Amino acid sequence: MTHSIIGTSVKRTDLLAKVTGDAKYVADMNMPGLLFGKTKRCNVAHALIKRIDVSKARALPGVKAVLTHENVPRVLHAGSPHPRSASVTCDQYILDNKVRYWGEGVAVVAAISEEIAEKAIGLIEVEYEELPAVFTVEDAQRPDAPLIHDREPGGNLVLPPAIFTRGDVEKGFAEADFILEGEYEGGRPTPAYMEPNVCTCQWDGNGNLTVWISTQTAFMVRGIMAEVLGLPLHKVRVLVDHMGGGFGAKQDLFQHEFLCALLAKETKRPVRMEFTREETFLGGRTRHPAKIWLKQGFRKDGTITARQARVVFNSGAYGSHGPGVTNVGTSALVSLYRCENVHLEGRCVYTNSPIAGAFRGYGVVQTYYALDIQMDEAAVKLGMDPAELKLQNAVREGDIAPSNHPLIGHGLEACIKKGMELTDWRNLRRQPRKVEGPIRYGWGVGCEMHGSSAYPGIKEQGNAIVKMNEDGTAVLLTGTAGLGTGAHTALAQIVAEELGLKFEDVSVVHGDTDVVPWDIGAFASHTTYMGGRAAQMAAAEVKKQMLKRAAEQLDARIDDLVVAQGDITVRARPGLRMTVREAVMPKKGIPAAQLVGTATYHPTKSYSFAAHFVEVRVDTETGYITVEQVIPVHEIGKVIHPVAAAGQIEGGIQQGIGHTLYEDYQIDMRTGRSLNANFVDYKMPLAMDMPPIKTVILENAPDPGGPFGAKGVGEDPIVAIGPAIANAVYDAIGVRFRHYPIKPEQVLTALAQLKGEQQTA
Amino acid sequence: MTHSIIGTSVKRTDLLAKVTGDAKYVADMNMPGLLFGKTKRCNVAHALIKRIDVSKARALPGVKAVLTHENVPRVLHAGSPHPRSASVTCDQYILDNKVRYWGEGVAVVAAISEEIAEKAIGLIEVEYEELPAVFTVEDAQRPDAPLIHDREPGGNLVLPPAIFTRGDVEKGFAEADFILEGEYEGGRPTPAYMEPNVCTCQWDGNGNLTVWISTQTAFMVRGIMAEVLGLPLHKVRVLVDHMGGGFGAKQDLFQHEFLCALLAKETKRPVRMEFTREETFLGGRTRHPAKIWLKQGFRKDGTITARQARVVFNSGAYGSHGPGVTNVGTSALVSLYRCENVHLEGRCVYTNSPIAGAFRGYGVVQTYYALDIQMDEAAVKLGMDPAELKLQNAVREGDIAPSNHPLIGHGLEACIKKGMELTDWRNLRRQPRKVEGPIRYGWGVGCEMHGSSAYPGIKEQGNAIVKMNEDGTAVLLTGTAGLGTGAHTALAQIVAEELGLKFEDVSVVHGDTDVVPWDIGAFASHTTYMGGRAAQMAAAEVKKQMLKRAAEQLDARIDDLVVAQGDITVRARPGLRMTVREAVMPKKGIPAAQLVGTATYHPTKSYSFAAHFVEVRVDTETGYITVEQVIPVHEIGKVIHPVAAAGQIEGGIQQGIGHTLYEDYQIDMRTGRSLNANFVDYKMPLAMDMPPIKTVILENAPDPGGPFGAKGVGEDPIVAIGPAIANAVYDAIGVRFRHYPIKPEQVLTALAQLKGEQQTA
Repeated sequence: MTHSIIGTSVKRTDLLAKVTGDAKYVADMNMPGLLFGKTKRCNVAHALIKRIDVSKARALPGVKAVLTHENVPRVLHAGSPHPRSASVTCDQYILDNKVRYWGEGVAVVAAISEEIAEKAIGLIEVEYEELPAVFTVEDAQRPDAPLIHDREPGGNLVLPPAIFTRGDVEKGFAEADFILEGEYEGGRPTPAYMEPNVCTCQWDGNGNLTVWISTQTAFMVRGIMAEVLGLPLHKVRVLVDHMGGGFGAKQDLFQHEFLCALLAKETKRPVRMEFTREETFLGGRTRHPAKIWLKQGFRKDGTITARQARVVFNSGAYGSHGPGVTNVGTSALVSLYRCENVHLEGRCVYTNSPIAGAFRGYGVVQTYYALDIQMDEAAVKLGMDPAELKLQNAVREGDIAPSNHPLIGHGLEACIKKGMELTDWRNLRRQPRKVEGPIRYGWGVGCEMHGSSAYPGIKEQGNAIVKMNEDGTAVLLTGTAGLGTGAHTALAQIVAEELGLKFEDVSVVHGDTDVVPWDIGAFASHTTYMGGRAAQMAAAEVKKQMLKRAAEQLDARIDDLVVAQGDITVRARPGLRMTVREAVMPKKGIPAAQLVGTATYHPTKSYSFAAHFVEVRVDTETGYITVEQVIPVHEIGKVIHPVAAAGQIEGGIQQGIGHTLYEDYQIDMRTGRSLNANFVDYKMPLAMDMPPIKTVILENAPDPGGPFGAKGVGEDPIVAIGPAIANAVYDAIGVRFRHYPIKPEQVLTALAQLKGEQQTA
Repeated sequence: MTHSIIGTSVKRTDLLAKVTGDAKYVADMNMPGLLFGKTKRCNVAHALIKRIDVSKARALPGVKAVLTHENVPRVLHAGSPHPRSASVTCDQYILDNKVRYWGEGVAVVAAISEEIAEKAIGLIEVEYEELPAVFTVEDAQRPDAPLIHDREPGGNLVLPPAIFTRGDVEKGFAEADFILEGEYEGGRPTPAYMEPNVCTCQWDGNGNLTVWISTQTAFMVRGIMAEVLGLPLHKVRVLVDHMGGGFGAKQDLFQHEFLCALLAKETKRPVRMEFTREETFLGGRTRHPAKIWLKQGFRKDGTITARQARVVFNSGAYGSHGPGVTNVGTSALVSLYRCENVHLEGRCVYTNSPIAGAFRGYGVVQTYYALDIQMDEAAVKLGMDPAELKLQNAVREGDIAPSNHPLIGHGLEACIKKGMELTDWRNLRRQPRKVEGPIRYGWGVGCEMHGSSAYPGIKEQGNAIVKMNEDGTAVLLTGTAGLGTGAHTALAQIVAEELGLKFEDVSVVHGDTDVVPWDIGAFASHTTYMGGRAAQMAAAEVKKQMLKRAAEQLDARIDDLVVAQGDITVRARPGLRMTVREAVMPKKGIPAAQLVGTATYHPTKSYSFAAHFVEVRVDTETGYITVEQVIPVHEIGKVIHPVAAAGQIEGGIQQGIGHTLYEDYQIDMRTGRSLNANFVDYKMPLAMDMPPIKTVILENAPDPGGPFGAKGVGEDPIVAIGPAIANAVYDAIGVRFRHYPIKPEQVLTALAQLKGEQQTA
């Protein structure tokens, strides 16, 4: 089947608005009487609030309202879908009389200017009764650890341990020729989206609440807001147009959104609360710091006989997506490399640390980092090439994925093979490594697989409404969010392709929960896959109605009609044709009809694959690691928009380089105080830090459930880059790092230690 | 069938917003960089523009753009549906080098303030070459009349004469015992809506145009704007939320909307153009002044043997809805009172007068005024009671309506009978009339019938999308407009009733052409009838899906389920029940689904009926007529919202009293100059001028095509009140007026003349 619109990189519909500054983000919204909200944050990590005095703040001219735990409803909430999902924990009050981490909000103020609000915050006096605090998962799991939430003693677990078992792991280890065992650790990167969290709330006289918010999950916001505030869903309207990124974290409702709504209710005026950059750290979400103990048994031929792991995620002060991350991250280890005997245990532990949440890769970044490095270690031990070993063990068609769905296609094998071919891998690895004085070069490979869609079945669904205008142009109504990834351009391509229209004849309506059909939100790499499939199905429904009209007018059979680029032709009857516009315009004897198609799509789980081949440069004098080049090979089924897909891959690699080499949000391990909540001290790779990336996208394993066979690509690229870098560093300098970020001082220390060992040996 | 929501006067959903001033009208919209547009209007009635000099206006600081006929596209437009309807004429250029009536726009200015724009308008110099002008239909139809448009000589007809014939009118007159013949005349009332015409236009960088506009017909605006500006439909977004009335006139696009869009395009800034009150006269639309020559033959028993009429409508300078009004107004005379031999001719004539357009009653006000007065005259001649004569001849079930559809129910008969019963009519008329010194009292009756929906078939359709939220609340997406009549409250009632929800659990999304399904607009009394039926059908579709889920969960048959007020019960199985919310919430084994229903409804034509019984008070010393009381009896099928329906009736009566007794927009018959374009000189009845109105609504002739049997009521009440007043005046003082408005000086003149005749006799 040939396509005229999908598979081409059409100009993104939001391009001009964004480059000209025309695009309106939530913080650009202004309205008469707008008030500005600010949050008072605590400077202790674990404490009871003994006294909170807001009298001076209230007395400040320009202050319109002050809220504390004493005058807001005591309602638990969570950044959860509605109805509540097992993926998240509902354990946070809007405001509590207890604080659980340094920087948690204890009061909010609404004032006529940001400056006055800020000043009022400074006038609030809080007296704390400090409680013992724990910052590491080890401390939090001790029998005598202070309880962060009101659970049973020893109860700092966010959820009971998650166990995943296949086969007989003891038997598997017994059959092994050798066993590898190691501890791996992931740091605390943050999503660091360009657009800080922001929302504006406004009530009308009928008690209807409008929320403008930068969110990935508008309908979840609607559901949670409605639940927490005690409103029916149709009295909450959530609006979001453009967004400056989310990376998973903007699935959550944080704390300020409810307070913003309550401030607006009390003042009867619109209130905006916008995070400062510092607050995106303090009040935001991080990736879960993780410790992974991983043990695998190998036969001499490279077969993996057993795999055992204990994974512990640090949830910080609240549960957020801890359950989901624990389940997804841990269960990911049943797959990627085939193994019949697996036993995995995942834990998620409360600590008095910043809140970890959903973040691109969702637990898998951490566990595949461990797995893929250990595979590299095994290759060394086996005297095999690591790419060959991974190829040999790569999951393939029919294997059971972590989601218990059979995999489609030999995607991972194909990615590894293609990368080996493009790098001339066998030759490359046979040759001695490049050395330039103190500079060492090395190559590594990292692999991953990632599912599109989160929990197929009960809750997950794509919805779409397509309506065709009377001139044959069409509008897609979709609840999917546009985080900045070009999702709505891809969806418009899908609709245009399916309807046989020109791309520019399709527009997209989104971002208004009153208007568009329900959507679960933009996460789990499923927007194009699931929202796109629903859009395709709705478009197909309209196409059927449209072709019926055309067939009547052309006196032809519907099955003989071909429609593309707005033109309808008839098979085997050249010259007989009409435009889509002509087909739908009412005319004598043919009444007008508003052609509308609706569709709901319940997805299965579809897996995408990638192998990243990476060259690094290690300066053995400074310890500084540079990524020299990346050859990422991805299998994502049919590509809808090649440039956007490549953009996702490049962006994921940039973010992956960040957490592997630089990014780590740190707290003082004595007080819990935030140490680097800004972009000077929290270093991210900039455009100028980026290596050349030669992205290759395969389209050999389309998913029959995706639109035209498309699968997700949002999360994949951030997963494989990390272990590829760590493995390349080993290749360059012979030092095995089992954590991220790998910092220059650690490189130097390790090199010194290695030298010592070599001298001793 | 019992109903729990329709038929009750629920609180209007827009009530609080309107009384608190929260409701945003187009003129309340503000945005950064907003410019203000103003129109330069001509002070000649018919002329060529020899020279137009805008240099001084352009040079004025703060002026951003000036447009004249020299720099706008020369495109014909009309306030027409898209595709063009036979109801309207497409004969006006955006700006022309010729002006055709006093007050027509010749240039527009956009400036940073209204004051500067106004000043700039004053700086524009225009030199005219005046042409001979005609203001009456008689002058315009003379063979040597100046041509107002570029038509054939003698071509001041807007359209060829419209002929309607039944039976043999010559034979009918031959069979008559006597013949009545008379000339009747209607003046030039204006709709005088509270909210002046206003629109704001804004372009984005992708060439998408957004238009905020006070309109009854958002999708027509979209279609015409797109056509005139050469855009596809999906690049034009038309937004309208609240409206301060339209009364038919706001179906048109006028002249300033295109210019507003062009000013916005040129300045790359949003531009608002808002009429002053004076401009609502100068640039607005009036009812068509009409002259009706009517001749009927009667038998002694009251049977009408023949009816012949020549109707001439004065279209003013442009055609607007002239064709539709001519056809509807003229053809109305085939019905109301039964007659087998009918010959009607309708003409519509251009004059150099203000533009006449669509206005509540749409031509029927004029022709039924003539018919119903002549029936009163016939009753006098026959020595019959006029109500009895009308009852005897009233159309009834199965009679063919002007639309060629058979009528449903004995609606008119029932209205007349009910009114006679309530007024104790026979006694009333038998008694001598009340006299208090110079004050005379009298009673009259007027009748009418009016169709819901304009042109059933090709173009006319109602559309709706209903989606149910995951908590069982629902949203209706409708393209119908809310002119201020409470239409969306009625539609929400219909959806709630059909879905079995509480009224407050349904919300309505409207007023955004990008979002809602196509709608023909709010006119022809069809919003509740047609849009409501579509809403009901879409709701029924959702109900089916919802009950399927409930039936599965209750293990019951769908047909046994009963749903009302949000509760689902099972027939013959008491105790077995669940809520709608429970039915739609996803749960284990039952996936979520976005329940969506869509519907398109192609209406037939449904007729409503009314008889108005009116008492007037005539002061024979001042000539002043006061309406003392009105007993309007309406048959409108099932009533959805009794208070809103009664509100329509009362408002129509107020407007009808206005045009019958006071309202007449006048021009100088020598120059064409507007004489009373303001609310001081153009007198309308105020609340304090209103008589007691005892509205009675019958529900005995429901329309099977309407939602729950509902029919329209928007236009009916303005039609019957006029002849009822004129007939009552005759009853009071014995003077027969055959025109409106009936002014005090005319009453005095007529009384003097009558006295003279009586003295002579």
